[in-house]
Amino acid sequence: MDALKLAEQLVKRAEIAQSGKKIVLLVLDGVGDIRHPDNGFRTPLEQARCPNLDALAARSALGRILPVDYGITPGSGPAHLGLFGYDPRQIEIGRGVLEVVGMGMELRPGDVAARANFCTVAGDKVVDRRAGRPSNETAAEKVQLLQQKIPRIDDVTLIMAAGMGHRFGIIFRGPGLSAAVTDTDPHQDGEPIHEARAETDAARKTADIINRFSRMAREALAGSKPMNAVLTRGISEPPRIPSLTERFGLRCGAIATYPMYRGLASLVGMDLLQTGPSVEDEFRAYLDSRNNYDFFFIHVKPTDEAGEDGSSERKTKAIEAVDQKLPMLLDSKPEVFVVTGDHSTPCPMKLHSWHPVPLLLHSPRCGADGRRRFTEADCNAGSLGIFHSMYLFPLMLANAELLDKYGA
Amino acid sequence: MDALKLAEQLVKRAEIAQSGKKIVLLVLDGVGDIRHPDNGFRTPLEQARCPNLDALAARSALGRILPVDYGITPGSGPAHLGLFGYDPRQIEIGRGVLEVVGMGMELRPGDVAARANFCTVAGDKVVDRRAGRPSNETAAEKVQLLQQKIPRIDDVTLIMAAGMGHRFGIIFRGPGLSAAVTDTDPHQDGEPIHEARAETDAARKTADIINRFSRMAREALAGSKPMNAVLTRGISEPPRIPSLTERFGLRCGAIATYPMYRGLASLVGMDLLQTGPSVEDEFRAYLDSRNNYDFFFIHVKPTDEAGEDGSSERKTKAIEAVDQKLPMLLDSKPEVFVVTGDHSTPCPMKLHSWHPVPLLLHSPRCGADGRRRFTEADCNAGSLGIFHSMYLFPLMLANAELLDKYGA
Repeated sequence: MDALKLAEQLVKRAEIAQSGKKIVLLVLDGVGDIRHPDNGFRTPLEQARCPNLDALAARSALGRILPVDYGITPGSGPAHLGLFGYDPRQIEIGRGVLEVVGMGMELRPGDVAARANFCTVAGDKVVDRRAGRPSNETAAEKVQLLQQKIPRIDDVTLIMAAGMGHRFGIIFRGPGLSAAVTDTDPHQDGEPIHEARAETDAARKTADIINRFSRMAREALAGSKPMNAVLTRGISEPPRIPSLTERFGLRCGAIATYPMYRGLASLVGMDLLQTGPSVEDEFRAYLDSRNNYDFFFIHVKPTDEAGEDGSSERKTKAIEAVDQKLPMLLDSKPEVFVVTGDHSTPCPMKLHSWHPVPLLLHSPRCGADGRRRFTEADCNAGSLGIFHSMYLFPLMLANAELLDKYGA
Repeated sequence: MDALKLAEQLVKRAEIAQSGKKIVLLVLDGVGDIRHPDNGFRTPLEQARCPNLDALAARSALGRILPVDYGITPGSGPAHLGLFGYDPRQIEIGRGVLEVVGMGMELRPGDVAARANFCTVAGDKVVDRRAGRPSNETAAEKVQLLQQKIPRIDDVTLIMAAGMGHRFGIIFRGPGLSAAVTDTDPHQDGEPIHEARAETDAARKTADIINRFSRMAREALAGSKPMNAVLTRGISEPPRIPSLTERFGLRCGAIATYPMYRGLASLVGMDLLQTGPSVEDEFRAYLDSRNNYDFFFIHVKPTDEAGEDGSSERKTKAIEAVDQKLPMLLDSKPEVFVVTGDHSTPCPMKLHSWHPVPLLLHSPRCGADGRRRFTEADCNAGSLGIFHSMYLFPLMLANAELLDKYGA
């Protein structure tokens, strides 16, 4: 039994709402970086002018978190599961699930999700698995057409949403579905569309529905070259995990502008709050619904985008923009306030990475590490050390005095 | 599933050889030390003048590794298994295996190894389990005699090699052997030589072979007091572990002067490269076979010997000797370069210890912790933190950009 299981047992459920304590987890996506010749050996956190974060750092506990494990670079799914207190090494989020969730589609228990592609078929062969890379608009029209022509198959409702270019998402909703079904996507050109095959008896109905969808889609699209057929892959179900409310009794609100992060939050049972696109909008959304939740996840995207583009300058500005608005959050005096990232996206790499992420935790009982800034190097020297990000969750609850003592 | 299993799944096998990237793990045996009144509160790493390591440290990631686990002092076997990316708490290297491997004997799958002692028997009793502690030379002659007189028993070949004093190693090679056999060594004087007993049905043949060897050895040695019989113990098989090549697709070369470390490297599937005795010889051996391997393990012994002898001065000089030759390695620009130890051997203790080992990792994407030196205290403040040494392996692969992202 580790800290996660213990925290589930020890959490003071009855006290949470009554105490009025708020826990705020502010995630600056990809905020961690590395000193490198390309940035003059100064990371964006080191370059940024952040008077508010600096002042907070001195009175806070600092450390660094490992998103998944040593040397493992996470995608956004595993990285957020860790921050939400789930072991990302034990939970698989299927490709189809991540895809539909990333399109902002709402998944329910029992649903089966698939990533779908428009493709071009000639004779019996797939000749272009991406149908000539259609524009978003052209593809969206075809998704709408399919949705109209194939709203359901027997007792299974189909819910489709367009993605980028040739990609779209499908949710199959109905009784008796299972995700143990193979792809119809042959994964290379020059082969026929595969038949979906049930890998278990329980998945026979799903395989049948998908194969019928495959044929119906071809009929519906007949004559509309190059998008004249559909391939499905990554058939998957939402992970069977208890929500944060079930585990800890917390009412959780998520504030994020990108569908992917809203989707990931919804998988662990968070309510998705309305927000405008700016950091100020997001912080305002928190203040507006402050009384309705105990835990808030606030996701800020521009730090990661700048990292992926390799722009230390933009990443620095994105950090400064957060710092500037920080008093909006701090003035509301959350009991526990955390600033960290889901993973590092070092600008010199232009990619997600495995580097442990800087972490700042503030509460009335966090201690004060006395570091002058919130930077990678200051966090290396903090009182929290380096630990797996999934253990941040019990640490936040402890700092809110919402965990009972273990043993007498 | 932890970082090791994930790394096995995520490693980019196809890219390794093609990329031409080299990973070099330089192990200064027992390098870690402790500040103590005996050394004026300065460890050998702190005392040593190391301009090359100092310059590298500033541009590297530092940390400390736990060889096995908190408070656990490792032997060389577990310590190296950890460095090679195996969990030393899960893998047992039997006494016999370690003994023959330490003598430079080559073990094959299916072999059974035993540690053997010459002893003195009078009547039916063992009167001296160490046969009066014979010289290496005297004992080696008797090993040769036994090898000539008992080259095989039925279809089992016996391979013997002399060790220190009364000790020697035996490999039993043939079909249908098993190590589940008890010792013939009574473990105290005044008892008869024990019959080897099979602990499983599959081990009956082995027990029979060992008992016949026991009697044949007595006949062969008859009259040659004090070495007139042989005791066997620690009957064991090579651990059934996949090689580094199987796990990660790496071609691995080992450069070590001592048979023990060559043997340990061979157990995980490394090729043993020819080398002379000096550090310069070892670095030259690396340069000479640089094109044939992806991963190099280079083992330097004098740091540990000085530690075991309690000589801070010699340990300091051994570290300086490595530093002086370091440009030979660095000029070849390995993609990932690591300096660490298998364990600490603090001079004030004259023993292996549990203290976490200083670690320096350099790569184009390691970050730069900006510490001025490679010392225990600097490593405490590094970005890598303190972690189990087995996770160094995924971290090295990550730093070579040879691991795919986990999850989308």
